[in-house]
Amino acid sequence: MRTGDGYGELLRDALEQGGEMLEIVERDDGFIMASRFGPQAYLAPFAKWPSRQRRALRLARGRVLDVGAGAGRVALHLQEKGHDVVAIDASPGAVEICRRRGINDARVLRVEDVDESLGIFDTVVMYGNNLGLLAARTKARRLLRRLHGVTSERGRIVGECLDPYDGAGPEHLAYHERNRQRGRMGGQIRIRIRYRDIATPWFDYLFVSREELEELVSGTGWRLARTFEDDPPLYVAVIEKEPRAPASRTG
Amino acid sequence: MRTGDGYGELLRDALEQGGEMLEIVERDDGFIMASRFGPQAYLAPFAKWPSRQRRALRLARGRVLDVGAGAGRVALHLQEKGHDVVAIDASPGAVEICRRRGINDARVLRVEDVDESLGIFDTVVMYGNNLGLLAARTKARRLLRRLHGVTSERGRIVGECLDPYDGAGPEHLAYHERNRQRGRMGGQIRIRIRYRDIATPWFDYLFVSREELEELVSGTGWRLARTFEDDPPLYVAVIEKEPRAPASRTG
Repeated sequence: MRTGDGYGELLRDALEQGGEMLEIVERDDGFIMASRFGPQAYLAPFAKWPSRQRRALRLARGRVLDVGAGAGRVALHLQEKGHDVVAIDASPGAVEICRRRGINDARVLRVEDVDESLGIFDTVVMYGNNLGLLAARTKARRLLRRLHGVTSERGRIVGECLDPYDGAGPEHLAYHERNRQRGRMGGQIRIRIRYRDIATPWFDYLFVSREELEELVSGTGWRLARTFEDDPPLYVAVIEKEPRAPASRTG
Repeated sequence: MRTGDGYGELLRDALEQGGEMLEIVERDDGFIMASRFGPQAYLAPFAKWPSRQRRALRLARGRVLDVGAGAGRVALHLQEKGHDVVAIDASPGAVEICRRRGINDARVLRVEDVDESLGIFDTVVMYGNNLGLLAARTKARRLLRRLHGVTSERGRIVGECLDPYDGAGPEHLAYHERNRQRGRMGGQIRIRIRYRDIATPWFDYLFVSREELEELVSGTGWRLARTFEDDPPLYVAVIEKEPRAPASRTG
């Protein structure tokens, strides 16, 4: 097994082979799951997206940062609607695919490395559970402040999440509890993606309830404005800027 | 992660939830794959089986030992056709399902523990790639001699296999080569099944070409009589008894 861009390789093979692939995600306690990773997940046109994603994306305005762009489904849609879009993804394979599919500005970049050199955005989109990239309590607050610094006065984050407590089975509840005992948030899962002989590095991915999200954004200059849902435990959160800038507004 | 009957749990959940599941198989070098594990794989009626399986199973006669019976698809079919069938599987979960589905004689037993207390069989079926349970060169020859001892004069093994060299990609060819350097057969893969938080113990599973299979059975009292194929690299081998008993016919 080698460490590498397993996600990018999966995406590339899925595109080139044209069919449904299976994505394997392994948690650091050995819990493993596979899920269908079909064209409907990464290539579907807007009309085929889940209603929560369609309804919430109508709130996207102006210049858009698409975080964790994958194969560029969201970025392409917004670009076609006339938005100026920057698509970022930590996976070089994903970014190569975004470019191949016609996204004008796609970059290999982690959300924690976003800075003002990218310009100012009106909307930050984090679809496909990518609010998970907030990763952990402290990191989340740092990221939210960073995004605050690169967004306009009326900036919005439209991000998808999963409520980890909604319908969780015993092996998940035990994982949450172990997390809390170690000072981590309950739904802070440490995972990697495995594809053939490649594993991505381990990374933290954060699942939070609405209440936790509300608390997480509080004091970062943002507030949870509303949520959209159609298929629990998934939801899309719309996070808007507080009327006044916070005291600690640093990049 | 705990070690246990991951395969049985998967099978049980698949049956109880009624839909398609995904089976994750991990090789000891970290190569991992998921495959669809749908009702068509473990519940399908005879008419829906691949043609190689249907054609070869017409050669089953008399009393049958079904090795690695899974959810009992083969054993049920043969039982309904009037055969006396003993279904064995190393997975307690699988055997429980076989019993629940109406198989008269289903036992938790590994093929290496088969002995004359089960009686004498006319046919040994090893479908679903279960010739793989031959595991390794020496073990395979021991198992073949053991099966020779519990089968009638006209005994047959009808077993499914995969030719590991047919269309193998570079990561598989490298694994084969590493195997050979360690004195193992090329297609002797060490794997485990992972399901949720359970991993089965690691076990050897043997994939051989027709030529290798021919050589493997030679001198054990058996000979490769014919093969059936419709979807390479898979094939069904029909292994029949040599006219004369071998010198080393031991149980």
